[in-house]
Amino acid sequence: MKIYLAGPDVFLPDAMEIGRRKAAICARHGLTGLYPLDNAIDLTAVDASLAIFKGNETMMDSADAIIANLTPFRGPSADAGTVYELGYMAGRGKLCFAYSNDPTLYPERVARSHTVTKADGGHLIDHDGLTVEDFGLPDNLMMIHALDLRGARLVMPRQRPVNLWHDLASFEACVALAADRAPTFRADSKADRP
Amino acid sequence: MKIYLAGPDVFLPDAMEIGRRKAAICARHGLTGLYPLDNAIDLTAVDASLAIFKGNETMMDSADAIIANLTPFRGPSADAGTVYELGYMAGRGKLCFAYSNDPTLYPERVARSHTVTKADGGHLIDHDGLTVEDFGLPDNLMMIHALDLRGARLVMPRQRPVNLWHDLASFEACVALAADRAPTFRADSKADRP
Repeated sequence: MKIYLAGPDVFLPDAMEIGRRKAAICARHGLTGLYPLDNAIDLTAVDASLAIFKGNETMMDSADAIIANLTPFRGPSADAGTVYELGYMAGRGKLCFAYSNDPTLYPERVARSHTVTKADGGHLIDHDGLTVEDFGLPDNLMMIHALDLRGARLVMPRQRPVNLWHDLASFEACVALAADRAPTFRADSKADRP
Repeated sequence: MKIYLAGPDVFLPDAMEIGRRKAAICARHGLTGLYPLDNAIDLTAVDASLAIFKGNETMMDSADAIIANLTPFRGPSADAGTVYELGYMAGRGKLCFAYSNDPTLYPERVARSHTVTKADGGHLIDHDGLTVEDFGLPDNLMMIHALDLRGARLVMPRQRPVNLWHDLASFEACVALAADRAPTFRADSKADRP
């Protein structure tokens, strides 16, 4: 089973090394990890960003599943590029797994950077008066329930690890979940063939 | 043509009114706008968030296109739920349109809340050392190029409007783009039928 490895990991100073570590964990579980930086892109080309997009999309189309790193990125929610990719894979009917190394619930995450208060109706709002989602979930419900229905519940550690961007325990838990589903997945794929 | 109206508009204090205004603009252009809050959900139910998810997914599946409000939300990027939905619709092969009422490029957006500096390699990084995407785009390249290839370029005003959450000029420009594509779209849909 081929797994697309989505996450803001590609923005880390040691992005290549993290990709190698993630692919090695996949291999230990009998799976193939596909990492965006495996695509050879000329970053000095004028259309570099389009080439990255096309490379990632081709990689996603060739994968059977996604494991997305939904650790909050520059705000209360996950990295936008990763969230787009999770949605894309869900839309394509692929298996969806994800983890967040920050187990905090969404209202707490928002409160780190915004003033959160109770509105007259009793619901939480930010300083602009916009509702703060408060369903006991760590991030927007669309991502969380897509995982529940299309793969497995979001994996989170009990406590935020010391190294938020390099701790791969929750990632490995996702790989194990994917490996558990691989035999069924193969049977389903065969059943679909004429 | 039915258009799913995605955006953090649902979190506004006057979320229902914004939905009505957006649907009215669609109707003026001969299109049908589907707004998430049109689904009747009991918000006091224990599974309210799952009911919202299922309602939104059913609505997206019944739509031919999406118009996503990608105005930055609680950080440099668009609302995570909206981005998930854009990805989902792209994955389903639907037409994708979007606007952002903030025309600022991504590095400037990040610099509002994070320290952005140049790394030794010459690329931009934030205070955690993570690369800041710098391709002359307003948000993550995955969303921006998905729009370029699956609908139309992200619509943005020249200047941020005074009322960031209620100005619908760029939204209306998306509706006009969708209406332009509707005849071709109908012909394509017919061609697909046996």
